[in-house]
Amino acid sequence: MPAISKKGLAMPQSPIRKLVPFAEGAKARGIKIHQLNIGQPDIKTPQVALDAVKNNDLEVLAYSHSAGFQSYRDKLASYYSNHGIDVSPEDIIISTGGSEALLFAMGSVTDPGDEIIIPEPFYANYNGFATASGVKVVPVISTLEEGFALPPISDFEKLISDKTKAIVICNPGNPTGYLYSEDEIRQLAELVKKHDLFLIADEVYREFAYDGHKHHSVMKQRDIDDHAIMIDSVSKRFSMCGARIGCIVSRNKELMSTAMKFAQARLSPPTFAQIASEAALDTPQSYFDDVIEEYVSRRNTLVAGLEAIPGVKVAKPKGAFYCIAELPVKNADAFAQWLLESFDLDGKTIMVAPAAGFYSSDNVGLNQVRIAYVLEENHLKEAVTILKAALEQYQD
Amino acid sequence: MPAISKKGLAMPQSPIRKLVPFAEGAKARGIKIHQLNIGQPDIKTPQVALDAVKNNDLEVLAYSHSAGFQSYRDKLASYYSNHGIDVSPEDIIISTGGSEALLFAMGSVTDPGDEIIIPEPFYANYNGFATASGVKVVPVISTLEEGFALPPISDFEKLISDKTKAIVICNPGNPTGYLYSEDEIRQLAELVKKHDLFLIADEVYREFAYDGHKHHSVMKQRDIDDHAIMIDSVSKRFSMCGARIGCIVSRNKELMSTAMKFAQARLSPPTFAQIASEAALDTPQSYFDDVIEEYVSRRNTLVAGLEAIPGVKVAKPKGAFYCIAELPVKNADAFAQWLLESFDLDGKTIMVAPAAGFYSSDNVGLNQVRIAYVLEENHLKEAVTILKAALEQYQD
Repeated sequence: MPAISKKGLAMPQSPIRKLVPFAEGAKARGIKIHQLNIGQPDIKTPQVALDAVKNNDLEVLAYSHSAGFQSYRDKLASYYSNHGIDVSPEDIIISTGGSEALLFAMGSVTDPGDEIIIPEPFYANYNGFATASGVKVVPVISTLEEGFALPPISDFEKLISDKTKAIVICNPGNPTGYLYSEDEIRQLAELVKKHDLFLIADEVYREFAYDGHKHHSVMKQRDIDDHAIMIDSVSKRFSMCGARIGCIVSRNKELMSTAMKFAQARLSPPTFAQIASEAALDTPQSYFDDVIEEYVSRRNTLVAGLEAIPGVKVAKPKGAFYCIAELPVKNADAFAQWLLESFDLDGKTIMVAPAAGFYSSDNVGLNQVRIAYVLEENHLKEAVTILKAALEQYQD
Repeated sequence: MPAISKKGLAMPQSPIRKLVPFAEGAKARGIKIHQLNIGQPDIKTPQVALDAVKNNDLEVLAYSHSAGFQSYRDKLASYYSNHGIDVSPEDIIISTGGSEALLFAMGSVTDPGDEIIIPEPFYANYNGFATASGVKVVPVISTLEEGFALPPISDFEKLISDKTKAIVICNPGNPTGYLYSEDEIRQLAELVKKHDLFLIADEVYREFAYDGHKHHSVMKQRDIDDHAIMIDSVSKRFSMCGARIGCIVSRNKELMSTAMKFAQARLSPPTFAQIASEAALDTPQSYFDDVIEEYVSRRNTLVAGLEAIPGVKVAKPKGAFYCIAELPVKNADAFAQWLLESFDLDGKTIMVAPAAGFYSSDNVGLNQVRIAYVLEENHLKEAVTILKAALEQYQD
């Protein structure tokens, strides 16, 4: 039998992948599962986006331009301008999800053997894209005690070598919910200027900033135009995860013409989804106001509930819709499995994502889980009750 | 300024990319261009596929399973069975276009520095996917004189080293229109068994086989279940290039579980496009009969027209909707540019794809062009008339 590639063998599994059979087992036993493990919001997609697709009059579902519809890029540039990010349509390439934008960015700035530095815990699929690109992720640890704030710049500098090509951040963070301050973004800007690195910022949760905190985009640091690469997506903003539309944005012309070659090889992003995404830009502000209000309320419920459980610690998220909670268990992986395999409270249990998968370092975050607050509030309350009862019963 | 990756710098441009500004210039001068350079069919997408999207009642545009909708994979497995390819839904992962399926396949079977052997001329984006994967394309030349038939197996064997991981074919071929015979597929099966290689067959044009010739899938060679990987797409079959839905199919379980890890990293293929693609499987046979009849008629018109031009040679295609034509010019690249920049016949000209970009070897195919017969017949006739007049006038 021909051999699988080393790269293929090294590709990481999703942190929740091995829990899936246990979840299926629980369902087969008639147990209802509150899924706190995934970032699929239950929020309705804006009607204006769905209607645009329903009312399309295409006769030939043709390729679009490899960079995406010009009309969409024009409108997107205006949208960014309205959010204080001054870019032109030429600074934008529409991608198939934020995922593809990350792959274009990694392919454009790294060669096999190169390194990227990422504050951990981080979105687990960065590992997948790095492995697929033959690139080594060098983690710099952020801690629950510090609320997952930016680690000291000296910690980054210790890790920078001539193989380092980029710093990658997720802001606000999945899985931490941490929102970087303007000062933290400024520190990163100075760092990438000093060491001539790219700063790749995954800003797909940009709108989800709470408690009056402002989101600070790397694109607003105008002295790093050649360094800053923004990754974006419609998935969370418009609850359109299934569209698979994102974009890569940068004012670095050479970078964008390189990314464009990757874009041309795959021909074009999906047409129906671009129609929906372009229309979604007409979503009224009231939609976001309602969504933010809903998430803040959920977060408050969740965090208050978690903090009331003995031995549970949580860093109160300022953005996105995740938080990392430390549990009074030795191994959150085994606990997450046990929740599905051996526990229920009145026929119900919960599914959480063990946090170790969000760390690149070994043996870190073993007693942490990521909880996504994408469920309605009464379900979140019930989930917290279930977690409390489970922790009282669990022995590891 | 931080440096672009070597890989990014090496990413090839599309063979027609540098012609685009000249095409825009011609249009700006009011010249009508018959576009023979692209594989975007003018055939209407089946109504059943478009209607499925228009009539969808999604409220949340959610992620699908990373392998694609189960319902779509079930139906696709039945579709393949009806075409004599006996596979189960577990042997199929839905991808974002055939492009992504190729990336999954290359990532699963090759590491940076590995080699894949491809008969040339071949679909130019294979170069892009190989470069993105850090893999070297080793071409084995097929010739217009032989109608682009499979090169002798001994030519492949001369190129096989311990770095060789796969043979890639496109059947029927883009850009050649060549359809491999059962005997040729059999020879390739023996070759990959003998040398323990993967055989990756891009069969996206499967339905486009003419003159009573049958398409022979690598998946029908049941002694190479562990070697055979089929790449497929809805783009051409249903004139749905903009859907961006394809799939990777193999009975090799280890390969598929590896490809699945790449699929999970990017979350899911696009949801609307899967709805369209699943519905497209209900397209009545009459649609294909009409389409095939149309393409055969176009091909006959095109080939007869080309053969009537002094000095033009063409290998009559048996499938797909491309042909390679040899022109009485030294440099087809310069000629293609001249057609757009300096020539018109009554305000009209043509755009063709210089064939050199479809060869990996240097200085091969310099006097060849690829012509896509995706235009209606009277436009094709006019295009041939324009080509004839242009060749009479052109001096290189």
